[in-house]
Amino acid sequence: MPKRIDHVAIIVRNIEQALVFYRETLGIEPSVIKDVPSEQVRIAFLPLGGPAGSEIELIEPTTPDSSLAKFLEKRGEGLHHICLEVENIDATLQEMQAKGAPVLDKEPRLAAEGRAIFVHPKGTSGVLLELLERPSAE
Amino acid sequence: MPKRIDHVAIIVRNIEQALVFYRETLGIEPSVIKDVPSEQVRIAFLPLGGPAGSEIELIEPTTPDSSLAKFLEKRGEGLHHICLEVENIDATLQEMQAKGAPVLDKEPRLAAEGRAIFVHPKGTSGVLLELLERPSAE
Repeated sequence: MPKRIDHVAIIVRNIEQALVFYRETLGIEPSVIKDVPSEQVRIAFLPLGGPAGSEIELIEPTTPDSSLAKFLEKRGEGLHHICLEVENIDATLQEMQAKGAPVLDKEPRLAAEGRAIFVHPKGTSGVLLELLERPSAE
Repeated sequence: MPKRIDHVAIIVRNIEQALVFYRETLGIEPSVIKDVPSEQVRIAFLPLGGPAGSEIELIEPTTPDSSLAKFLEKRGEGLHHICLEVENIDATLQEMQAKGAPVLDKEPRLAAEGRAIFVHPKGTSGVLLELLERPSAE
């Protein structure tokens, strides 16, 4: 069973513009704003609920060609995916496969926050679902 | 500033069908499954992360006429809204209005979990946003 909601991701046209609401109006201070050129995006994390809490992630595509940019073009700004933290991503992947879930990865991919797999919306009632193992703190 | 992500809501055609993935495959046990006739929906809450954690809410429209049923018809299953818990919903409403956020409620509405207001997606980068004050535990 997943440990918690790690983050909820929102795809936006422009992070600074989105922060007018999320930072100025709502009062959530971003912990990180950075370019991730390998994924052709700029991201911001808005932490809520302290260390055991969850984050809102803002994702801004930085090139017109990525699948995220095409998602934005087609669907507009809005909710993009949910990420749940799991204890062990390898065991989770095996279990998802054994139970016939439509996992998009043959093995865990290296994400910014740890190792992750994605499950296709067709298996989750329409939700792109990320499952993530964070590196253990040492 | 909001205290935490209270829940993330997913609109589904059929809760039992959605639970095949969320309960059987993912292993999250619903804390509540109930009809809410006043809102023409059936809902399930899937708690994650313990008492300080967040929940996934599954929402199934039970009539064809509600705005939720129309949303489902138009957009299909998927992410519907995020809810953030706040300390004081009256103060939050005043602040949102003073800062020009497109709040959908003139005063807090009575939701199942407490008193809440909704902010229109046009002010939040495309996300229907619920802000909720839960009754204080006594």
